[in-house]
Amino acid sequence: MKKIVILSFLLAGMTVFGQSKEDSIQFSTISTEILNNGKGYTELKDLTKNIGNRLSGTEAYEKSVKWAEQKLRDAGADKVWLQEVMIPVWVRGKESLQIKTADGTWKKLKMLSLGNSEGTDGKDVSGEIIMVRSLEEYDKLPASQVKDKIVFFNYPFNQSHVQTFISYREASAYRRSAANLTAQKGGKFAIIRSLSSAFDDVPHTGNMRYDDNISKVPAVTIGNTTADELELLLKNKKITAKLNSNCGMKGEKLSHSVIGEITGKKDQSVIVVGGHLDSWDVGEGAHDDGAGIVQSIEVLRTFKKLGIQNNHTIRAVCFANEENGTKGGKQYGKTAKESNEKHLFAIESDAGGFSPRGISLEMDDNNRKQIQSWVNLFLPYGVYNFEGKYSGSDIAPLHEMGVPTAELVPDPQRYFDIHHTEEDTFEKVNRRELLLGAAVMTQLIYMIDKNW
Amino acid sequence: MKKIVILSFLLAGMTVFGQSKEDSIQFSTISTEILNNGKGYTELKDLTKNIGNRLSGTEAYEKSVKWAEQKLRDAGADKVWLQEVMIPVWVRGKESLQIKTADGTWKKLKMLSLGNSEGTDGKDVSGEIIMVRSLEEYDKLPASQVKDKIVFFNYPFNQSHVQTFISYREASAYRRSAANLTAQKGGKFAIIRSLSSAFDDVPHTGNMRYDDNISKVPAVTIGNTTADELELLLKNKKITAKLNSNCGMKGEKLSHSVIGEITGKKDQSVIVVGGHLDSWDVGEGAHDDGAGIVQSIEVLRTFKKLGIQNNHTIRAVCFANEENGTKGGKQYGKTAKESNEKHLFAIESDAGGFSPRGISLEMDDNNRKQIQSWVNLFLPYGVYNFEGKYSGSDIAPLHEMGVPTAELVPDPQRYFDIHHTEEDTFEKVNRRELLLGAAVMTQLIYMIDKNW
Repeated sequence: MKKIVILSFLLAGMTVFGQSKEDSIQFSTISTEILNNGKGYTELKDLTKNIGNRLSGTEAYEKSVKWAEQKLRDAGADKVWLQEVMIPVWVRGKESLQIKTADGTWKKLKMLSLGNSEGTDGKDVSGEIIMVRSLEEYDKLPASQVKDKIVFFNYPFNQSHVQTFISYREASAYRRSAANLTAQKGGKFAIIRSLSSAFDDVPHTGNMRYDDNISKVPAVTIGNTTADELELLLKNKKITAKLNSNCGMKGEKLSHSVIGEITGKKDQSVIVVGGHLDSWDVGEGAHDDGAGIVQSIEVLRTFKKLGIQNNHTIRAVCFANEENGTKGGKQYGKTAKESNEKHLFAIESDAGGFSPRGISLEMDDNNRKQIQSWVNLFLPYGVYNFEGKYSGSDIAPLHEMGVPTAELVPDPQRYFDIHHTEEDTFEKVNRRELLLGAAVMTQLIYMIDKNW
Repeated sequence: MKKIVILSFLLAGMTVFGQSKEDSIQFSTISTEILNNGKGYTELKDLTKNIGNRLSGTEAYEKSVKWAEQKLRDAGADKVWLQEVMIPVWVRGKESLQIKTADGTWKKLKMLSLGNSEGTDGKDVSGEIIMVRSLEEYDKLPASQVKDKIVFFNYPFNQSHVQTFISYREASAYRRSAANLTAQKGGKFAIIRSLSSAFDDVPHTGNMRYDDNISKVPAVTIGNTTADELELLLKNKKITAKLNSNCGMKGEKLSHSVIGEITGKKDQSVIVVGGHLDSWDVGEGAHDDGAGIVQSIEVLRTFKKLGIQNNHTIRAVCFANEENGTKGGKQYGKTAKESNEKHLFAIESDAGGFSPRGISLEMDDNNRKQIQSWVNLFLPYGVYNFEGKYSGSDIAPLHEMGVPTAELVPDPQRYFDIHHTEEDTFEKVNRRELLLGAAVMTQLIYMIDKNW
């Protein structure tokens, strides 16, 4: 990290004289316009309070499609259209998790089934809990010890990483594989400690997948407080858990991503800015990813409002089905490839509407170095970190097609307190932070559009 | 700004090879300790929920003195003591502001008298409102137009500045001088639009001062929503305002700053880390400045816990009376000067418990350049900005004595939504952001202690 940082700073120092004062002024104009007149915050309030959470396949999601269409028109897009995509439908239904306490009575635990998990078909499924703290520990257990049991994967969120996404990625292994691992050794269902940085009892849902040729056992998640209590109880006694749930996949359905664009004045090669329109089925999908949606719309609105004559087409994409399928992103990539539509660049905002700190760049070194050389234009807006080399899941198909991709990198400290929970609400979003993120994406797209 | 940025980045690049891997490891050890085991967040909850707001001279402030004493002992300080200081006592009392509507009925407005303002002695004081949008506009008004009127200084918070403290400083001129300006032209009292970045009706209090030889008229503040409504009403009609308040200065009182230190192993020259213990009389004083207090205590706790053998004395100072007098800081400086106590460095945290982004340095160029050369050690913790040249009010007397001073620079986007209001509560503080701020101050003090 050190070497890269030095290099990029030196590079920034050496090439700043190549950047024009004109760019600096345009950055300021963009920021001033958005901080004063940006619509993203009020639009996010509308989306979260009048529609709310919008899981793929739900009526709320279809409402949000119409909503996004209208907002893109309001923003001044030249063209707005819906892109068809077949999306998997998962339904939660009624669910409950209980444990049997010392005196023999059942106690209800706050929980959520993981996304795309199967349920118990409305039957009670119970068994003795065995607890492991790591995949390595689980690995060592003979199947005889797991058979017919309930496996509690008690891996704690690693508070040590400053960049919380690293901790999230580490913990994701448990969410991803808990069910499969449990089924492999004959367990009845899996409980995972939520992928949460918070010290509360809020469960965090999220996607999981079943491997082929393994029986599908349910996987559920509990909040940190319940996980701590369960851990304590299990020190001294055998605990029985009982799950009753009705969730499961219910086939496929036709849905849509929503796209709006401002036609390029020089050519129609495409610059994409986007977020995912769907959310999990708890909370309001405010940070994840209402923020990315309204920020992307703000980019278009700002180009129009300021009369910036874009060389290339600037296209805002509200991707369908990111949370439990990524079908929207895949369909977008497929359509772009089949229609041979030249894409110059794509950026996504899907890490919350918090204060921007950086832009992650997944592209060849030449393109990366050029963008990094613009760091001094971004510094006054709090954006200093151009070291990341990853980008979002919705634009991964574009990346695979060779398109340079990027992701907005906001401050990560608060995200995993509320990610995929009932706490992801509008009130958690700060107006200025949200709008600054939109401003930074607009500024970057202005530079890409001008220089590429 | 551009030139300075290039220079500091180049400097960082050139001297990073002089920093040891040992420092990098120590930074990581400090951060890991605090993020996992830091007590600051639970201590802040204790301070805000069990004591709450603690204006100078109140019983709550005296409670917080005992509280801070205990926390410094718990942190492992070798010495803990109270420093006496005479502080001014201001009392708010009952207050109400009303306007007369079209139909002749009085309507109550949400308001707060400014700190240190005189009241109306419990009498009704009323008059017609005249509105100005700037000091320049007010300047042009002949006294005859202001006499016996109520002056509404309707200066809007400037959303354009990315660094919100600049907007705050600009707007502060109105809070500082509204009463004096109003009195100069014979007005009865002043109303100011709150120094607030939020789009709500929360009034933000704050300090003001009367000039000598001017009659003391009351000054009050209203939230942005009420200010917008008043502005609209005043377009078309004459509005009468009526104030009834009982606030005022009630002499002086003996109070205390609280100090704890870990004795230096090599010598007893002093490194100060601090915040102010007092708060305004609304909300819980969570960000302002409970955060700075618990972060300062955390520095001491961490040095002890990790067994860092500090060369110089590390002293946490919980300053009294910052909000409406700065007497604590002044007394501290006076005592240090009179006792000829050598001070190496002082840093304050008084800008909220948000994610750290920088450290502002008020010192000669050599010291500044040396600290700036450490930027690569701080980057992994999100701290990149060493360009600021200011430091906090409590340590200003030390600065005047020639001590190099600094201030923690957190993300500024949320601060002026809640600053000096009922909304400055524990729930607005994020655990990781708060602890990262403490970690960064600990890391800096480790470097200063090692190298100076």
